[in-house]
Amino acid sequence: MLNKEYVLGLVDGEGSFNVSINDKKRKAKISLRFSLKLRHQDKEILEKLQEFFECGNIYIQRDKRANHSLCYRFEVQNKKEIFEKIIPFFEENSPLIPSRKKDFELFKEIASLSKDKFQDLDKIEV
Amino acid sequence: MLNKEYVLGLVDGEGSFNVSINDKKRKAKISLRFSLKLRHQDKEILEKLQEFFECGNIYIQRDKRANHSLCYRFEVQNKKEIFEKIIPFFEENSPLIPSRKKDFELFKEIASLSKDKFQDLDKIEV
Repeated sequence: MLNKEYVLGLVDGEGSFNVSINDKKRKAKISLRFSLKLRHQDKEILEKLQEFFECGNIYIQRDKRANHSLCYRFEVQNKKEIFEKIIPFFEENSPLIPSRKKDFELFKEIASLSKDKFQDLDKIEV
Repeated sequence: MLNKEYVLGLVDGEGSFNVSINDKKRKAKISLRFSLKLRHQDKEILEKLQEFFECGNIYIQRDKRANHSLCYRFEVQNKKEIFEKIIPFFEENSPLIPSRKKDFELFKEIASLSKDKFQDLDKIEV
């Protein structure tokens, strides 16, 4: 099992907290994603992350750009898993890298708005 | 002070073990570099890495490509520091990511050849 400090360092280096908002419909749809991408030969670490967080999936990610090798991506998109596993972990183990910490704080704020079914985008301060 | 497991995770995510060999002269010149690059707003973590490893320098790294922000790079190139600080740390705290571990093992092997003034490049198995 991975050590939690190690996971924090790895996520600070390579992790991503992503929010996408589709506001074309009357009610905005908010999608949340926590992910981490590694080269294909390092897939076993993604499996250990999956074991560590007790959630998420692993996907292949092809990249046709020069000098970009085949990668795999560990990803959590399920809201229940985001709320019960991902957010509590990073609340207890706050990212040390300022820009990652800021990403997480915003991710958490938007997740909270989305949870409350209170999807007024004007409430989100970026 | 950063936790060593955190440092290991961060280096697994974003670190780099680099070797450059100039064999244009009769005796090959081997340069070793351990480095880690972060966005400019995260420079304080590089300062903490410098404090953690008790060596290295921090440089600005401009990148003119689109979508690439201004970065800073923590870098250790001094051979004494590589041998006394960097290699011992990663020998005791082996990278968990397979490709990073392979990079380090090769880095260490080439460093060892370079230390012995025995710079026969045919001896290095890549």
